Amino acid sequence: MKPMGPIPAWFASEEAMLLIGGCGAASLVDEAGDTPLFVYDLGIIEAQIRHLRDVMPPDLSIHYAIKANPYLPLLAHMVGLVDGFDIASGGELDMALAAGQSPDHISFAGPGKRDDELAAAISAGVTLNLESEGEAARALQIAERLGRKPNLAVRVNPDFDLRGSGMRMGGGAKPFGVDADRAAALARTVIDAGANWRGWHIFAGSQALDPMALIETQAATIALAARLSEQVGVTPPLVNLGGGFGIPYFPGDVRLDIRPIGVALAEALESRPAILADTRFALELGRWLVGEAGVYLTRVIDVKDSQGERFAIVDGGMHHQLAASGNFGTVVRRNYPIAIANKFDHASLADPVSVVGCLCTPLDRLGDKVALPSIEVGDLIAVFMAGAYGATASPAAFLGHPAPREMVVG
Amino acid sequence: MKPMGPIPAWFASEEAMLLIGGCGAASLVDEAGDTPLFVYDLGIIEAQIRHLRDVMPPDLSIHYAIKANPYLPLLAHMVGLVDGFDIASGGELDMALAAGQSPDHISFAGPGKRDDELAAAISAGVTLNLESEGEAARALQIAERLGRKPNLAVRVNPDFDLRGSGMRMGGGAKPFGVDADRAAALARTVIDAGANWRGWHIFAGSQALDPMALIETQAATIALAARLSEQVGVTPPLVNLGGGFGIPYFPGDVRLDIRPIGVALAEALESRPAILADTRFALELGRWLVGEAGVYLTRVIDVKDSQGERFAIVDGGMHHQLAASGNFGTVVRRNYPIAIANKFDHASLADPVSVVGCLCTPLDRLGDKVALPSIEVGDLIAVFMAGAYGATASPAAFLGHPAPREMVVG
Repeated sequence: MKPMGPIPAWFASEEAMLLIGGCGAASLVDEAGDTPLFVYDLGIIEAQIRHLRDVMPPDLSIHYAIKANPYLPLLAHMVGLVDGFDIASGGELDMALAAGQSPDHISFAGPGKRDDELAAAISAGVTLNLESEGEAARALQIAERLGRKPNLAVRVNPDFDLRGSGMRMGGGAKPFGVDADRAAALARTVIDAGANWRGWHIFAGSQALDPMALIETQAATIALAARLSEQVGVTPPLVNLGGGFGIPYFPGDVRLDIRPIGVALAEALESRPAILADTRFALELGRWLVGEAGVYLTRVIDVKDSQGERFAIVDGGMHHQLAASGNFGTVVRRNYPIAIANKFDHASLADPVSVVGCLCTPLDRLGDKVALPSIEVGDLIAVFMAGAYGATASPAAFLGHPAPREMVVG
Repeated sequence: MKPMGPIPAWFASEEAMLLIGGCGAASLVDEAGDTPLFVYDLGIIEAQIRHLRDVMPPDLSIHYAIKANPYLPLLAHMVGLVDGFDIASGGELDMALAAGQSPDHISFAGPGKRDDELAAAISAGVTLNLESEGEAARALQIAERLGRKPNLAVRVNPDFDLRGSGMRMGGGAKPFGVDADRAAALARTVIDAGANWRGWHIFAGSQALDPMALIETQAATIALAARLSEQVGVTPPLVNLGGGFGIPYFPGDVRLDIRPIGVALAEALESRPAILADTRFALELGRWLVGEAGVYLTRVIDVKDSQGERFAIVDGGMHHQLAASGNFGTVVRRNYPIAIANKFDHASLADPVSVVGCLCTPLDRLGDKVALPSIEVGDLIAVFMAGAYGATASPAAFLGHPAPREMVVG
């Protein structure tokens, strides 16, 4: 038996059936038409954002990094819940605008922006987080050609990283942003070129579960933003503090307590250097806002035994859930939380079962030797923590299976 | 500096420009319209198949596992080159038929076949490689309902594995096929039920570069097929020996010498047990047939330095090349062979450069600290070994970037 991550406390059942947004999982599948199906509970997203606003300083802006989940009905709902969208491509620009987000609440980071993406962003009036001197030169040239005054911020490769972070985005040689020691000069260049100066974007890492690590990083980020602003001699309108708030995917992971982060951030902002007195601050979150709100439902197609081990084969798999299969930036595969949706309150058997996807590769495993109730063909498997980096972060075309369905509830 | 895999010997240059199928890489990009672009050289695929037929026993059938690359113009060309297609989903069935393959040269393996896929396959008349007793019962029931006599083979989970294999598909508890000790009973069941008995499918592993390992596995596979056939008391029309032929992706990998495999297989087939005297044998290959024939071309968008290291950022990345980024079943990331297509014969610099994709994640790396000629914005990067498990085995929708273009040449 191998352990799995904790099932999020948001979820309960009625007559053994998992409820998502108050609806039974099986009825949601009926409504959607078939499995595999991603269900996103807007109520959970709203509760997360409410909790965040409760504990964070009142003036803090909340941005949504739409790469985490760009499903259009979810995006459209997010417009009313957050203060801005962060995008990472021209395609995401189109999605953000289609969802109804206003261009002056959109900022665009990404290390390889093509000329056509820069032009589209400048024409739309969104803020570009410049990743290099070369990109700045291209952006200024394109803005000149278009006769537009571009909104430009500088993304900084910080000289520190987010401790315990799932992915380090700073604290070494990185393809993201400009090194801290060159950032002020670049800001000066774009200000002198007549651009609208928008400020700093400093993203040190992601998926951290230790509040102290996030508190330290935010303090270091504010200090760095102040130091750079002093060097430029201009107050930045906005400092994007990045995100990095993690969610508990794996056995032993403990849910991040954001209250101490809010307290520390309030203190840090109150005592911030004078040059940042009129600066607005933003948190950029993706995974933390939407990850727990998603459930991936997939149906058991076959149950079989091989050499004394039991396998349940489902109609979904790694082509929709690359990260849950352990093939997305993880070295050692660990189990996401999963359950049998239609036997949610049943006791688990003593013998383990492996839940594998329908792809013809041993990589396609959603649950490795996990404890579940007695499993049968037709059962619905729920994979939790499926709201972020699921459908779009997986090789959907692999082996020619149908695309997953998606829906919002709540 | 970190090493990279060997550039396939198929490729040369003219006036410094990489040639693919006799055409310059830059003109191919012009013809396709833009980067990122996958180019598949049909001449290389033909040469691989010619070489294979030259060294293998004359009666051996060659099957193409279309999951490796289902790009339709490539598939359509493969119909005339190989003796059959192996598919892994209902979607791949549609692709195989669209490419012009005849249903009686198609077989369908896959651990989680849905009822609608079984029905489509039985209606079309393709062979089903049964993965379990449960699947056999469903297939027989569906055939009965459709009034069709199904073509059924049994996929066996062998009691051995392919030594040195990139992915083990046998030799333990597995979701693929039925355990060898239950396979004969299942064959008996489907024969007694009146199905067309098609034989055995035995796939022990993939991506092996050691001829001896493949020779041993093929011998063990023939022996297992004979033993099972004796138990059933019926000569199987076909034994699919699986594949497992690897290609050299990484530093130190040596190209598989298939000649000794052909010699050993001829001997093994000549001395095969009497029950297999009238049996046809097939090799099922995907990666080996098409992998070396593909080149992924992506353009340098930015060149930047961070803390003394140089980065080239391209307009492609892991969303098209998940395996090359090191995020597809690999534990330790190693470099695929890459080159600057428009400086193919230039000398490499002493200082390394990292070639990273345009995605906003540190996972998106196509070349880690590799030796390349002096790199500039606008250069074309070629990633080799891109013919198999590229475009369709990658998270193409991630971060909203455009789909890659694809074309065949030669």
